[in-house]
Amino acid sequence: MATTKIGIIGLGLMGGSLSIALQESLELFHFIGLDHNTKHCSQALELGLVNEIVHTLDEISHCDIIILTIPVDGIIAVSKQFKALEAQCTIIDFGSTKEKISNSIPKEIRENFVTAHPMTGTEKFGPLAAVSDLYTDKTVVLCDLEKSGKHQQNVAKKLFSDIKMQLVFMGAKEHDKHAAFISHMPHAISYSLANTVMKQEAATSVVALAAGGFKDMSRIAKSSPNMWEDIFRQNKSNLLEAIDSFQAELKKCQEMVENEEWETLNDWMAEANTLHDILE
Amino acid sequence: MATTKIGIIGLGLMGGSLSIALQESLELFHFIGLDHNTKHCSQALELGLVNEIVHTLDEISHCDIIILTIPVDGIIAVSKQFKALEAQCTIIDFGSTKEKISNSIPKEIRENFVTAHPMTGTEKFGPLAAVSDLYTDKTVVLCDLEKSGKHQQNVAKKLFSDIKMQLVFMGAKEHDKHAAFISHMPHAISYSLANTVMKQEAATSVVALAAGGFKDMSRIAKSSPNMWEDIFRQNKSNLLEAIDSFQAELKKCQEMVENEEWETLNDWMAEANTLHDILE
Repeated sequence: MATTKIGIIGLGLMGGSLSIALQESLELFHFIGLDHNTKHCSQALELGLVNEIVHTLDEISHCDIIILTIPVDGIIAVSKQFKALEAQCTIIDFGSTKEKISNSIPKEIRENFVTAHPMTGTEKFGPLAAVSDLYTDKTVVLCDLEKSGKHQQNVAKKLFSDIKMQLVFMGAKEHDKHAAFISHMPHAISYSLANTVMKQEAATSVVALAAGGFKDMSRIAKSSPNMWEDIFRQNKSNLLEAIDSFQAELKKCQEMVENEEWETLNDWMAEANTLHDILE
Repeated sequence: MATTKIGIIGLGLMGGSLSIALQESLELFHFIGLDHNTKHCSQALELGLVNEIVHTLDEISHCDIIILTIPVDGIIAVSKQFKALEAQCTIIDFGSTKEKISNSIPKEIRENFVTAHPMTGTEKFGPLAAVSDLYTDKTVVLCDLEKSGKHQQNVAKKLFSDIKMQLVFMGAKEHDKHAAFISHMPHAISYSLANTVMKQEAATSVVALAAGGFKDMSRIAKSSPNMWEDIFRQNKSNLLEAIDSFQAELKKCQEMVENEEWETLNDWMAEANTLHDILE
């Protein structure tokens, strides 16, 4: 059985967890890591997430598969720096936005490229946050797959199937609209909630009174500002539309309370309950 | 060792979990249940949450301790129906709002009464949702405790200590203001988020794309409309103030994205991150 060379650019939660998951499959891999954060490089080596560290794109560009697990602006920047790639090389980016990335990949390497969004993560980051089951039974959205080469399509499908993900196919534009509502706008809400409560409440009250609901709703406010600044920038218009829709809904709630329309409020809450008939 | 008679009015998550937790302590108890939902009554009996079911307030009013685990409007209604109580009887309500309740208790039984808010719960309800560790290591806020009799103060402190809760003391008015920001407004957000996403997204997209963040943020949108309608009504003005503050913060986020003030946005996200220095 041949050893597959996998390059991971960005040795954090996503890249590290991918390595652990692949190492649990039956294939043979050699992992080459690249990250400008030298501490993350040595941690990734120590944790056995990579077999070696390299320092330039050239050194990683001969891998069979190259994974980009870096913030979404970095994905666009790096994709422009690749020199001519071998026809069989597959690059897969794991970014949370897809349209700008899909449209920015240089023509010469567009067939090498697969744009994917694994719908998973935690608020933690760095190689120490890597876990074996981050991808298990989660969904990955493969976008604009017709723009990738046939070989690359197959490599990506096999890779995500090997780590037990469910594959969904979608246009990048459509993906970004859905992601704005289901992921990006909820992050804006969580950051806003955390800042609202910290302005209003003394630390002692927060600690004493925060129950499970508040903890859940503020958990993703711990997410990396650098990663999310990029996502908000790349998905700006969809995000603003999603925030507008949410604000209209919250305003409706506010007006029902203000005007004491309790029966209508009760119906509106019962409507919200039905989300969980879909989700569970 | 004498057997303490405990009456539980409202045989749901909170009342049922209290029974389980008390049964794990070293004391002897006899539990008497009252609930207008006959299915909940028989479930509570089957699950061993209560030893007997009664059908009138009179039959429960001779208990040593009476727990009110019903929606907050119900607490006020029931408190007005108690006839003269024995001097040693302790009534404890578990409502999520405290000012209206504290001020509505008839004078004749005010010393019998302790108004408490255990800061715990799940989105589930009914006796089948009861669990043994719902209260363990959580906070309970005891409000306006100086209005309760000395005996009742001691009974309540012992009861909550026995189920391993941390005691916090606060005026009812102050409690309601904090609770609006840390609990009630986040529920309004979660309901709004669920309704926004369901209007925008097809069920298949929600299922395919919902990751941990969205699931966490929409979890409490599954909460009981009847319970939360009452809470929103009783804490109306504080809730509206909290929603206003949150909306201002979300608007700030929206404007930073709109105006592409990315550095300021990044700082604002980093500020939100610091909540978790307090919480964890």
